[in-house]
Amino acid sequence: MKICRFDNDRLGLVDGETVRDVTAALDVLPNHRYPLPIFDPLIALLPEVLEAIRRIAPSSPTLPLAGRRLLAPVANPGKVIAAPVNYKKHLQEAREQVEIHHNNQVAEIEKIGLFLKATSSVVGPSHGVEIQHPDRRNDHEAELVAVIGKTGRNIPRERAFDHISAYTIGLDMTVRGPQERSLRKSIDTYSVVGPWLVTADEIDDPQALDFWLTVNGERRQKANTRDLVLDIPALIEMASSYYTLQPGDLLFTGTPEGVGPVVNGDEITVEIAGIGRMNVAVRNARRVT
Amino acid sequence: MKICRFDNDRLGLVDGETVRDVTAALDVLPNHRYPLPIFDPLIALLPEVLEAIRRIAPSSPTLPLAGRRLLAPVANPGKVIAAPVNYKKHLQEAREQVEIHHNNQVAEIEKIGLFLKATSSVVGPSHGVEIQHPDRRNDHEAELVAVIGKTGRNIPRERAFDHISAYTIGLDMTVRGPQERSLRKSIDTYSVVGPWLVTADEIDDPQALDFWLTVNGERRQKANTRDLVLDIPALIEMASSYYTLQPGDLLFTGTPEGVGPVVNGDEITVEIAGIGRMNVAVRNARRVT
Repeated sequence: MKICRFDNDRLGLVDGETVRDVTAALDVLPNHRYPLPIFDPLIALLPEVLEAIRRIAPSSPTLPLAGRRLLAPVANPGKVIAAPVNYKKHLQEAREQVEIHHNNQVAEIEKIGLFLKATSSVVGPSHGVEIQHPDRRNDHEAELVAVIGKTGRNIPRERAFDHISAYTIGLDMTVRGPQERSLRKSIDTYSVVGPWLVTADEIDDPQALDFWLTVNGERRQKANTRDLVLDIPALIEMASSYYTLQPGDLLFTGTPEGVGPVVNGDEITVEIAGIGRMNVAVRNARRVT
Repeated sequence: MKICRFDNDRLGLVDGETVRDVTAALDVLPNHRYPLPIFDPLIALLPEVLEAIRRIAPSSPTLPLAGRRLLAPVANPGKVIAAPVNYKKHLQEAREQVEIHHNNQVAEIEKIGLFLKATSSVVGPSHGVEIQHPDRRNDHEAELVAVIGKTGRNIPRERAFDHISAYTIGLDMTVRGPQERSLRKSIDTYSVVGPWLVTADEIDDPQALDFWLTVNGERRQKANTRDLVLDIPALIEMASSYYTLQPGDLLFTGTPEGVGPVVNGDEITVEIAGIGRMNVAVRNARRVT
């Protein structure tokens, strides 16, 4: 199933060019009092939510997908985990271009491991990207994102896929500079996720997905997830050897070669086969306190 | 006021060697339904909670502090932000000791900025630290932690203290290695916070606090927050130039020289003048999936 969040926190079942409003399925989720859970409540109960959706979908109102405001399909990720330089040709370009490496060492992922993005940086495609430092280079990085469905620590690679409940598309926006990745990639709006979740049962092989990114219609990135340096089970094994993975944690699996700058007014489009396509507008952030 | 969380998610008002059970003050906090807020609900309503505490404290049961299980005083931080190498003598030791730098560049904080720790790594002092990779060096790093009280972006240094509602002690545990800080410092239990919050009005000058850390009674770190390289307003200004700060976000302000390894069975004690003292036991993690 393709599950989206849209408009004013509505829940939707995507079917071609339409969406069924299945918000009533959220009634299976409990109320929470302080202290709140540190995982995403919907993803933690995804099987129950899906069952409710199946039950109510036939009698739910159908809306055109066009014109809906698409929100991040995971509202409360506890962690946003990301894989740096996880395609060989991207490692090569990162080492060759001073605008990317800023005289920092660019080491292999096997050495440097994973980084975190702030959960406050997550937005849906309809929100768009807000460039916070327009005087610096701000790059698009298209990625396959795995949504963790089940709690786990020290997960062996053989069981890694048991811990993934869905996939989605991620745009790991990045301002270039000498700073730590967890700062440069955590700007508000710099983790675009969408356009919806595709439950894992609908993706035959997540490691054989074609994907591409354009800016204003011009092709910038084109790759297949089979070219990941560390594959998805290896990423899950590595991540969970440091911290417990929780339902709703997002794993950005890395971007291929072709990263490049975007500026105010640009329109980014990303498509991953079997998931869908999302359009993301770029504008400069208003300066606010 | 000194506010703790203890035992089974009880709320406490600390007074010398006793604690008043003021859990009923949590009744001022609302119920939440999905999607959950991305900030800490208690810190967001701290003035209301403090008012309720003042009202009910005189008639609340008094317990001895000894024997209470002290939890992290902020249950739902949205972000755990930390300042790397923010005392000059620690930068010096990090550059001199290969066991710390692992042949990575150790650049100044002005250049590399801030890093993130996973919110899933946060525990209270009574939980203790669990060493996940006992074959590697695992270091203690004692720090003053500022608790963000008010939402803000692009906060100028003149207004930085308006955004801090409390202070607490942090132990930024670190496994050494070539990995990104946001991975090495995000192991479960590697962000110990406690023993309680001290509201900002009780700290005359957070940038003139003596603090020290011992391991098994032996002094390892001793410093004063006046020796911060980037002071607290500079850290707030830098952080909020990348992302929105939210109530409950934790800002680890950096550790001074004297970092060093701990192993299974060690007992760490940290004290910051005007805040308090916390004891933290170290043990090896059980290997679980």
